[in-house]
Amino acid sequence: MRYTPSGTAVTSFTVLTYRGWKDDSGTEQSSPEYTNIVVWSKLAEICNQLLVSGSRVFIEGRLQTRSWDDQEGVKRYKTEVIADDMVLLGGRSGAGPALSESEITVSPDMCVNRVQVIGNLARDPELRYLPSGTAVTTFVVATNRAWTNSEGVRQESTEFHNVVCWNTIAEQVSKDINKGQKVYIEGRLQNRSWEGEDGVKRFKTEIVASFIVGSTVRDEMRHEDGAVHPVPSPAAKDPT
Amino acid sequence: MRYTPSGTAVTSFTVLTYRGWKDDSGTEQSSPEYTNIVVWSKLAEICNQLLVSGSRVFIEGRLQTRSWDDQEGVKRYKTEVIADDMVLLGGRSGAGPALSESEITVSPDMCVNRVQVIGNLARDPELRYLPSGTAVTTFVVATNRAWTNSEGVRQESTEFHNVVCWNTIAEQVSKDINKGQKVYIEGRLQNRSWEGEDGVKRFKTEIVASFIVGSTVRDEMRHEDGAVHPVPSPAAKDPT
Repeated sequence: MRYTPSGTAVTSFTVLTYRGWKDDSGTEQSSPEYTNIVVWSKLAEICNQLLVSGSRVFIEGRLQTRSWDDQEGVKRYKTEVIADDMVLLGGRSGAGPALSESEITVSPDMCVNRVQVIGNLARDPELRYLPSGTAVTTFVVATNRAWTNSEGVRQESTEFHNVVCWNTIAEQVSKDINKGQKVYIEGRLQNRSWEGEDGVKRFKTEIVASFIVGSTVRDEMRHEDGAVHPVPSPAAKDPT
Repeated sequence: MRYTPSGTAVTSFTVLTYRGWKDDSGTEQSSPEYTNIVVWSKLAEICNQLLVSGSRVFIEGRLQTRSWDDQEGVKRYKTEVIADDMVLLGGRSGAGPALSESEITVSPDMCVNRVQVIGNLARDPELRYLPSGTAVTTFVVATNRAWTNSEGVRQESTEFHNVVCWNTIAEQVSKDINKGQKVYIEGRLQNRSWEGEDGVKRFKTEIVASFIVGSTVRDEMRHEDGAVHPVPSPAAKDPT
């Protein structure tokens, strides 16, 4: 770990993954893949404290490619994952500091609850306001799945996902997307339960959306090079 | 698009994303990021046919870093995303071939239904066999979420996720993971409904798991360099 001149912590490490596949003769093969990870600020300090060689980790982040000119004046590129979430999955070797299991898993942030759905809007979104003035929009997204069953017959099924979103994203989405349109939804799973008038307890699982992209061209702009690029903020993003 | 000597199609393209953030003065900033995508086989032909400059796409794949020696004998690296799924989200510019909207969205594969959960096993997994002999394991994973409410008070909540898995993964998981253990689950959302004895229709949303990693050291091996690396197949993977 090192610190930038402004005092921000930054640490980097490499994650080794293996990919298994079968070659033409049906033999199991595997190949290693090394991925460069860069972590900033508070998470850098946590990684530096908890991770040792051999730790098994879940990393979530974004890709970033840096370029620079080397001593010979040749342009060099390096692609890294800038991590914004890290979860220790255990499997530490004995070489690290003696942290107890409870110290490692006590943080409630050491969880991931993430859904990605691309499907078609089954009906128009419904926007309403709570007595507190908070905007809530609900809608249903249908996804199709196709597979071949054991008799070799192609099968299809449709799932309907209940989606809920709040505040500015709720207001924006209710204007931007319509029935039938293809949408990308990112969020977390949430369960609610309530008792009906018949006294029977009911459960409902919803996707609480934090990021929604509609398939309109509306949120794009034409650049001078003639290509259509997405604008910096093409989507509704929950400010929380 | 080009073809390898063995006749496999391969195509590559660049995806432009923007990341928005606020600088120290609170001004909205954005920076572009270019990511190299490589696509093989049938998907390469589909991408080549459907994608034009400006298309808005969802790409799912794995990171791969290639290295080679350039003309000066300097080692060069290039990191690419090897795509195994592509969904066209619309936003095509007018330059491409005249494909109708129905041609683009008619494929049921043009959907994504994906969940990632890391949490603790709320109870031991339950393995049972259907009359057909198929193995089914169900279990519940708890995820915690912490946030600060509008009064600045820290809040916490727990979600319980119903997970179901089938066949070899069901048998393996029932032996490998136990109550309290931290697990990584990857799968898809599925809704079921049935009528109770009281005639009331009930709904249940489950995660159908296709990939599970437990936090044991059991599935790791010690390499000669002293570091503990995950083995090629550390996890239960659904063969379908």
